[in-house]
Amino acid sequence: MRAVLFDVFGTVVDWRSGVAAAVGSFADRHSLELDPYAFADSWRAQYQPAMHRVRSGARPFVSLDVLHRENLDDALRAVGVDPGGFDPQELHAFARAWHFLPPWPDSVPGIAAIKQSGYIVGPMSNGNTSLLLDMAKAAGLPWDLILGSDVSRAYKPDPEAYLRPAALLELEPGEIMLAAAHGADLAAAREVGLATAFIERPLEYGPGTAAARTAADWDLAGASITEIAGALGAGATLTAAPSRRIVTP
Amino acid sequence: MRAVLFDVFGTVVDWRSGVAAAVGSFADRHSLELDPYAFADSWRAQYQPAMHRVRSGARPFVSLDVLHRENLDDALRAVGVDPGGFDPQELHAFARAWHFLPPWPDSVPGIAAIKQSGYIVGPMSNGNTSLLLDMAKAAGLPWDLILGSDVSRAYKPDPEAYLRPAALLELEPGEIMLAAAHGADLAAAREVGLATAFIERPLEYGPGTAAARTAADWDLAGASITEIAGALGAGATLTAAPSRRIVTP
Repeated sequence: MRAVLFDVFGTVVDWRSGVAAAVGSFADRHSLELDPYAFADSWRAQYQPAMHRVRSGARPFVSLDVLHRENLDDALRAVGVDPGGFDPQELHAFARAWHFLPPWPDSVPGIAAIKQSGYIVGPMSNGNTSLLLDMAKAAGLPWDLILGSDVSRAYKPDPEAYLRPAALLELEPGEIMLAAAHGADLAAAREVGLATAFIERPLEYGPGTAAARTAADWDLAGASITEIAGALGAGATLTAAPSRRIVTP
Repeated sequence: MRAVLFDVFGTVVDWRSGVAAAVGSFADRHSLELDPYAFADSWRAQYQPAMHRVRSGARPFVSLDVLHRENLDDALRAVGVDPGGFDPQELHAFARAWHFLPPWPDSVPGIAAIKQSGYIVGPMSNGNTSLLLDMAKAAGLPWDLILGSDVSRAYKPDPEAYLRPAALLELEPGEIMLAAAHGADLAAAREVGLATAFIERPLEYGPGTAAARTAADWDLAGASITEIAGALGAGATLTAAPSRRIVTP
């Protein structure tokens, strides 16, 4: 194990609160009656379908910034608002709310502790490089390097999205651990040989929406990045099942 | 100006001392009579010709690690030593000396100060991503991100080597400053629109070999990265000639 790479939206940052804040100020500015959280959820609901069109080959690779901007139009139309009624520059700036999302409270100290233990740390995200860079600068995420989805030109769970960063790091897949709050992401990573850490984020979609625990399926699991850092710092041995170590049973 | 990106070999790190140290210990181990500095110079002399074969299209892109490894064989043969007489694993490890080069004394504080002033900092190097990452971890270079030449799959001074990182950063070329100790690199960067900072490294090729000063040609110039940091922190205005600001006249 040489590197711990992180899913970002939901795992490292609280996209829902961050986007809802941007929606709230956009709505205020234009006197729109919008539920900021419902709008954030609707915007996010377009995320997988939009990437699916790229993954399936139905359209060539475009950056997540482009998809977020297009999905904003859809989310506005879904609440009966015509995106054509706004200055395109303002909509562009609005869509860049995804660049400046707040980290969960444990993210910065947890990532710093894992880095301190000698691991390479970085995002392994569907975000594009400039998005991840803006986010890191604003939130103080102490990444060693940032290789966005526009470097591999592939979106998770496409195998290339895991394997191209591994090749650039000159690491075997098994020398990399993906830390993520989402089972489908971890399953795809494991399929191509990465180690996996599950991080519980019961508040990702708001209070009372937590999915069932899937901790037992992964090499490590914890309620925070600091908890994963503790396990790694304590020399958690990461071996193949059945001897997987679960931090929080 | 949003980002200051750095040439690495010679500008940020003292490749000659670092490689000579590795040569010295290889020679000791095998009781070879080698001048470590002359061998380092000979190894480095293959650098441009090897990249030229890629830039010219004579061979497809291969990583700088591959070129350094091939060039080591040439450098050994040039002193009458058969590379076939060594364990390939040992030669591989020897060639990785280029991953672990010592920074010049001002590099870490200078880059940290530029980052502190709010600029994005990173390498803009012919090194591959894993090489630059190993170097950053060992030397404590506080890069915001690392995009090696294997991301753009182009070697400076190929325009793509400057423009592909700019595109990934979502920056106009003029929002990026290249800091380098080499006029040809700066000239190629300026040709595609980057701002330029010249850093004097009179000891790059050893004592008494300093090239003539070319400081007056560039937007900024200084005797160290900390000097450039001082100018940027003091709000040096970077405008087109003839009002270029020279730090050290």
